[in-house]
Order: sequence, then structure tokens, then C-alpha cells
Amino acid sequence: MTATLQLLKNVKAAKTALALAGTEKKDRALEEMAACLWEDREEILAANREDVEEAKGKISDVMIDRLSLTEQRIKGMADGIRDVVSLPDPVGKVQSRTERPNGLLIEKVGVPMGVIGLIYESRPNVTSDAAALTVKAGSGCILRCGKEAHRSCAAIVRAMRRGLAKAGLPEDAVVLVEDITRQSVTDMMTAKGYIDLLIPRGGAGLIKAVTDNAQVPVIQTGTGICHIYVDSYKDPKEALDIIENAKCSRPSVCNAEEVCLVKREIAKEFLPLLRERLVAGRVARNLHPVQLILDEEAGGIISGTKAGPEDFDTEFLDYKLAVAVVKDVGEACEHIARHSTGHSESILTTSAEAADLFTSAVDSAAVYVNASTRFTDGGEFGLGCEIGISTQKFHARGPMGLDEICSYKYVIRGSGQIR
Amino acid sequence: MTATLQLLKNVKAAKTALALAGTEKKDRALEEMAACLWEDREEILAANREDVEEAKGKISDVMIDRLSLTEQRIKGMADGIRDVVSLPDPVGKVQSRTERPNGLLIEKVGVPMGVIGLIYESRPNVTSDAAALTVKAGSGCILRCGKEAHRSCAAIVRAMRRGLAKAGLPEDAVVLVEDITRQSVTDMMTAKGYIDLLIPRGGAGLIKAVTDNAQVPVIQTGTGICHIYVDSYKDPKEALDIIENAKCSRPSVCNAEEVCLVKREIAKEFLPLLRERLVAGRVARNLHPVQLILDEEAGGIISGTKAGPEDFDTEFLDYKLAVAVVKDVGEACEHIARHSTGHSESILTTSAEAADLFTSAVDSAAVYVNASTRFTDGGEFGLGCEIGISTQKFHARGPMGLDEICSYKYVIRGSGQIR
Repeated sequence: MTATLQLLKNVKAAKTALALAGTEKKDRALEEMAACLWEDREEILAANREDVEEAKGKISDVMIDRLSLTEQRIKGMADGIRDVVSLPDPVGKVQSRTERPNGLLIEKVGVPMGVIGLIYESRPNVTSDAAALTVKAGSGCILRCGKEAHRSCAAIVRAMRRGLAKAGLPEDAVVLVEDITRQSVTDMMTAKGYIDLLIPRGGAGLIKAVTDNAQVPVIQTGTGICHIYVDSYKDPKEALDIIENAKCSRPSVCNAEEVCLVKREIAKEFLPLLRERLVAGRVARNLHPVQLILDEEAGGIISGTKAGPEDFDTEFLDYKLAVAVVKDVGEACEHIARHSTGHSESILTTSAEAADLFTSAVDSAAVYVNASTRFTDGGEFGLGCEIGISTQKFHARGPMGLDEICSYKYVIRGSGQIR
Repeated sequence: MTATLQLLKNVKAAKTALALAGTEKKDRALEEMAACLWEDREEILAANREDVEEAKGKISDVMIDRLSLTEQRIKGMADGIRDVVSLPDPVGKVQSRTERPNGLLIEKVGVPMGVIGLIYESRPNVTSDAAALTVKAGSGCILRCGKEAHRSCAAIVRAMRRGLAKAGLPEDAVVLVEDITRQSVTDMMTAKGYIDLLIPRGGAGLIKAVTDNAQVPVIQTGTGICHIYVDSYKDPKEALDIIENAKCSRPSVCNAEEVCLVKREIAKEFLPLLRERLVAGRVARNLHPVQLILDEEAGGIISGTKAGPEDFDTEFLDYKLAVAVVKDVGEACEHIARHSTGHSESILTTSAEAADLFTSAVDSAAVYVNASTRFTDGGEFGLGCEIGISTQKFHARGPMGLDEICSYKYVIRGSGQIR
């Protein structure tokens, strides 16, 4: 038996206690977890210094920054755990209630999923976020972080397990995989009967490997080739504001725009304005300019990089924007159907008809009218939190909060009914 | 390219037209499908006679009966299609609506799944039921029936496709797999990018093979080792009525009781009454008696067959009932956790406390208090229809109606919001 399989057995054994714990006990555990995390801050920072030391030169500066903890960041993590206390408990929530003509009272009730597995990369705060959400959702969790963050995550998990025990819940409700080789990822993907829901978070390669090979239920998250289609406007400034926000406010995230489609009728007017706003205009404002990657028709109107065959199927996560000219909203929808990853798309239009066609035809998790794609986020959607963004249609779609990592059952109360 | 892959391409090409069809057009198509089915009854009956002729001697009389069509049964199938017209359209249904402080209006809206695959056995009526439900749910469907029913199903599908065309919808919204070898099942299980939801219906072997090997999203259906736990009663007659109903009203279905657990405190009183009701009592009423299969403790109180090691893990689908004595509701829940398939369980009790413990702790799709397990059914639950009963926790659980074979997306309407 591998060490990972032993951990899977441990967390499975803990899941019933967690499922039956009740809101008050789970909330007390969250408070204790936050307190213990803060108490152990020196130990966590020491572990993190070792991780950072070892990672230097091996990963990019951006990644080192994501990996590095400070006292302030640990306080943020503890506050993040406490925020979950105020969220409504999805377990036991009555989602619908019917009384049947025969007198049976049928309730559809939220229940925990069981054991949730998370495979992620090097941000240590994902460890505490994920543990807090799964505890509140009444499920156990098995966490597998990136190897660069392993000492930091181990210290964080030790603190949180101490908090669970203080509240009278089993420590094994939160376990961290100790094996940082690929074997443990394989063990988790094939853990039938142990993992009820597996969420890979990270690069497209990791997500594809997990969704392709997993034998347990998986939610495909994150990859976002997000489109904005410019159909019409009263004032081009609003369209330019939205596009600049969607592309530049945080280019490295999955809800950032990667492709801009422009209606032929307005392309000659709009494309020069787009270029001015995203290239020269940003340089003038001391901001990073955007590299425009143009299809043939757009390239005939403004200057920029000529698009290669892959450019409309690439998640740049960078100051790059692929631009194409399309005939109309129908052609925009067709382009999106061919190239989108099903994350977020937006239409900018003054036409109610075009908006309705776009929102009906585009089959993505979030479909916007006259707004930035950057709002696809659990907090912005009012879910209060987020464990990831699903780009699949099965089980959950879009930002996943507490309800989305739960299941349900029917509870039927009778008085002797037979059929 | 196999013939099945060509069919998958055809149905995928049809799915957008169906997704955008709207309620009125889909309902008209259902009316036309029902009318064409009735018009083609002679052709369908002729095909069915060939199927039955070939199957005679190869499958049991019960199976021959399930396979056989009559004019009356075809009328029933057409009426079944028309019943779907009156069900609310799940596509476009606004499941929730929030206005955010920044003015974004966020709606969670039902959308079609895309293409639904169904693998089933020899009942021809499943063909029309499944096609009607998937059309109403805005999805295309690819049907793979048991080889015994192949000519009948082909004639049924031909009629329904004619109905679709008459209503202006693509015929390929409903396709029947022509290859009746195992290869086509494999083709469907591995049809990534073509099948968005695969539902196997039939024996435990088929379901296990599909859930173990599928690379597309699957709903595990049907297998039911259903338990009734007798905790306490005012009058034993009510408990006996429920148990006899759950076991004997239709022993071959998945929501029939297979195991009876009895609390030790009442076992000496109750077990002789159970034996009298299910064995001698049924013989006296000219009904098929139930074979009682007893654990050691129950065998010390009444006579019956001694339980073997597999008997508490077997879906008998027959006049057989495994019986065990347990200490209390806690031990009953533990027994169920070890042996149940997660379908339906019931507690018979006068204690609100025991009922609450049972409904909280038992993790099955349907958990009953004082009622027969036989009610686990889409119609009985008020869903209006049913395409199967999910015994998994991922995506859908329990009876699946139209909502359960759909997905959702978020539609967000703004007025220039940026983040």
C-alpha cells in the first residue's frame, strides 16, 4: 500500500464524522483552524523560507512571489478561513419540497460529497482556502500541492489539523499528500471508492492529464480562451474600456480576454481605435502595451502581428490579444463554438436582438452582454467563495461555491404509504 | 471510421438546431413523432414479429413479453410521447436571478446537455421514451438497444425521425446505432467530444462495464439493494404492509426491497409475524411466497434459508428477502453503509429521533420514513417522467427527469461594467 492510499483510507474513515457534524461544530472548527494557523505562523514562515530557498533559480520570479509567505499573507489566509464561517451551510439545506397527493412529503436536501481531492500548484493559500470550503461543505479533503510548496503546505495543514482536533472533529478530515512524485497524482486519479470529486487546479497540461486519465469524478477547471465580440456601440469608449479591462486588468487569470471579434460593418472605424487604446495609448500611460495578433482582414486595416494557425486556440495569459473580423453575430457565435474553451464570452452591442441571439447560441459557462469577462468569479457572482471555475457541463458549471461541491438526496416522510 | 462514429458526427451536427429550437417547435415535433409512430404501426409490428420470432428460445418468456409489441402498446408509446409535451421546458428556465451591487444582472439558466447516449436492453418502448425526453430537453440522442429488439427499434426510430423532419427539426436529432456488436458500445463509451452524457440502463453487468470504462460523462443507474429497517411500530400490520409491498408488488424492479433489518428488541415478536405474512400468509392468498434468507440471529428465531456470505450484497430481483437482526438504528445505518448500492432505504419507526438519525446518516438517493421504497420513481416524485434512476452523487441523484439531463449557464447583463 502506498502512503497516498493510506491517507485515502484515513480521510475516508473521517468523512462520516464530518458529514454529521452540524453547522455549529463545523464553524467552531473553522475558527480553531484560523486561530491555529495564526499561532503557528513562525513555523509556517520557517518552512516557507526553506521552500523559497530551494525554488530560487528553478521557477520564475512570478512563481516565487506566489510561493512566498509573509506574516500579512498568513493573516489573510486565517481571515479567509473565518470568512467561510459566515457562509450558509449547504448540508441539510432543503432545495425543494413537495407534498404528493398520497401524503408523502418529499424534500430534496443538500448532502456532502464525501471526500474531495484537490491537485494544485504552488500557492500555499489554496491549501487553507480549499480545506475551509470542504470542511464547511461537510466533506473530507485530500490535498496534493506542487512540490515547490510542499514544506509550507505541510506546516499549514499541521496547524489546521490541530484546529480540527480542538473542535472535536477528526484531524484526518484534512490530509496532505506527502509523496510529491507523479505517483501520488496517479494514485488520486485512480482512487475509486475513495475520492468522490477530484478538482485539478493549475496549468492546462495538468488539467488535461487529470481529466483524460481519472477514474474518479473530475471537474475540469480553469482554462479560458475568452472572447469579446464587438457588435455595435453608441460610444466606442465603453467598448474600449471593457476590452482593456478584460485583457489588461490581470492578464494571467482564466477570465481574461484572449480574443476580440469585430463586426465587419464597424471594423474600419473600431480597429484603429482599439489599436490606439491598447498599444500607443497604454505606452503613453506608462502601461504595458498589448501585442495585437491579427487575422488577415484585421491586418488589412491596422498593423500588428500576423496570426498563425494556433493563435485563436491559445490561452496567452499575457499582454497579447488575437483579433478577427466577422460578418455578424451569427458568425461570431460560430467562431466561438469552434475555438472557445467554454469559460466566458461577452457581446458588446446596442441591439437587444443581437444580445439575445448571442446569449442563446453561445454555450459557455458565463455569457455576458456589455460587461467585462473578468467578473466570472465566485465572489463577484455572489457565491461568497470559490473553489474553482468549471468549464464542463456535467455536475457544475462556472464558479463553484459550497453548493457546487455538494450532492443531494431525497428524504421522504410518510405514514404507511404503499404503492 | 466506424458506422457508429458517423452517427455520432451526424447527431453532433444536429444538436445546435435542437438547442435553439424553442418550446413550441419541440412540442410540435413531439406531436408529429407520436403521430408518425401510430401511422407506422403496421411496419413496426411487422419488424417486431421478426424480432420475437428470432428471439424465441434464446431469451426467457418474461423477456419475450417485454420485447413483444401490440397495437395497444404502440398506442401507449405514442401517448407517452404526447405526455412529454405538457412538461415544462427545462431549456431557458431561469433557475436563479441576482442583481449585484454593481448593477450586473446574473441569471442561471437551464441549457441542453448536447448529445445524450443511451445504452439499453430489449424493451422497445424505452426507444420512444428516451427520444421524447431528450428532444424536449433540447439534446440530440444516440440510442443503442439490445440486439433482440433491433428491428423493432429501427422501425420506431424511422417513424420518429419522420416526425422530426415534418416539424422542421433535423432527423439526426435521434439516431439509432446499427452495429449491434460490442464494438458500438465501446465506440459510445469512448466518444469524447461527441457524447455529453451517457446513460446505461439494464443489468448490473452492463452498467458496471460502462461506468468502469467510459471516457465520457456517465450516470450510473439502477442497481438497487434496498433496505427496510424495522425500528418500532404501534401496530405491526403497518410495517408488514410496507414490507410486503416493497418486496412483492414488483420484485424485478430496482426499488424493490432486498434486505430487511430488524431491531433486536422487537425481533422475537416481529420475525414470526414477518414469516407468517410473507410465507404461509401469501400461500394462503394464492400468492408467490417469499424465500427468507436469514442471518444467524434471525435464524435462531424463525426458520428459513441460512444466509451465505453474498446474500446481503445481492440484488435478488426475485421473491427472496435477506433478513438480519441489528442492535439499533446506529447499527442499521452501519449495515446499510457497508452493503447498500445507494438507491433507496426506509426506516419504519414511531421515534422521531430514530427517524432523524436514519435520514441524516444514510447516504442513499432516497431515504424514507414509514413508507415503501417502491416510490423511488420520477412519476411518483412529481418529475412527470424519468429517464433512469441515478445511484451516484455526481451531477444527478435519484430519479432523473428533464432538469437532470440538462446543464446550466450564467447569463450576465451589464451596462459597461468593468472590474
